[in-house]
Amino acid sequence: MSLIDSITFNEAGLVPAIAQDAATGRVLMMAWMNEEAALQTLESGYAHYYSRSRKKQWQKGESSGHVQKVVAIYLDCDGDTLLLKIEQTGPACHTNRESCFFQQQKDGVWVSIEEPMK
Amino acid sequence: MSLIDSITFNEAGLVPAIAQDAATGRVLMMAWMNEEAALQTLESGYAHYYSRSRKKQWQKGESSGHVQKVVAIYLDCDGDTLLLKIEQTGPACHTNRESCFFQQQKDGVWVSIEEPMK
Repeated sequence: MSLIDSITFNEAGLVPAIAQDAATGRVLMMAWMNEEAALQTLESGYAHYYSRSRKKQWQKGESSGHVQKVVAIYLDCDGDTLLLKIEQTGPACHTNRESCFFQQQKDGVWVSIEEPMK
Repeated sequence: MSLIDSITFNEAGLVPAIAQDAATGRVLMMAWMNEEAALQTLESGYAHYYSRSRKKQWQKGESSGHVQKVVAIYLDCDGDTLLLKIEQTGPACHTNRESCFFQQQKDGVWVSIEEPMK
């Protein structure tokens, strides 16, 4: 079975993909891929996602330059989630932070633990 | 705004949650939470998820004993994905592997990189 045929896309034709910094292990973001984005990621070696709001496939960093070079790709046990270890250029988050997961639960509230890069 | 009100649940009332080993940084699994599961995770300090196949909320490890003690919880920039740093008891995967992400892309095929625990 081909790489892509082993992936279970959901009813919307999408699969969640987690991007993890290959060097630090930090989880940077979670986004969605359609089949085209998954294929382009596998073929190009750079992460491509599907924007649900813009309804189009895109290469991460195509406008910002904050590309993600794929180091390794993993598929989970039931085939419906991808994990990418990547080399991130610049911040992964559109807020200009290294990681999208910059809000941490502390004493019952979400606290920002990271400032945007200058 | 309360912790739970800051979380954007999808049209099915669910939010994806990534579980990462707090000690090793390894990404162990991705599963879904409904509001009840998120609340119980926040209140109990142990990961709870929602099973889409069984259509019920459950504590991870409630039958296997493979519980996940929450060390930290993060919310992403647009509020629709959670990241949990956890202490995992036993294997996280139902296949008895440490991580659900045990299939790695190598030379165009998915290769199992981890054996089930004995």
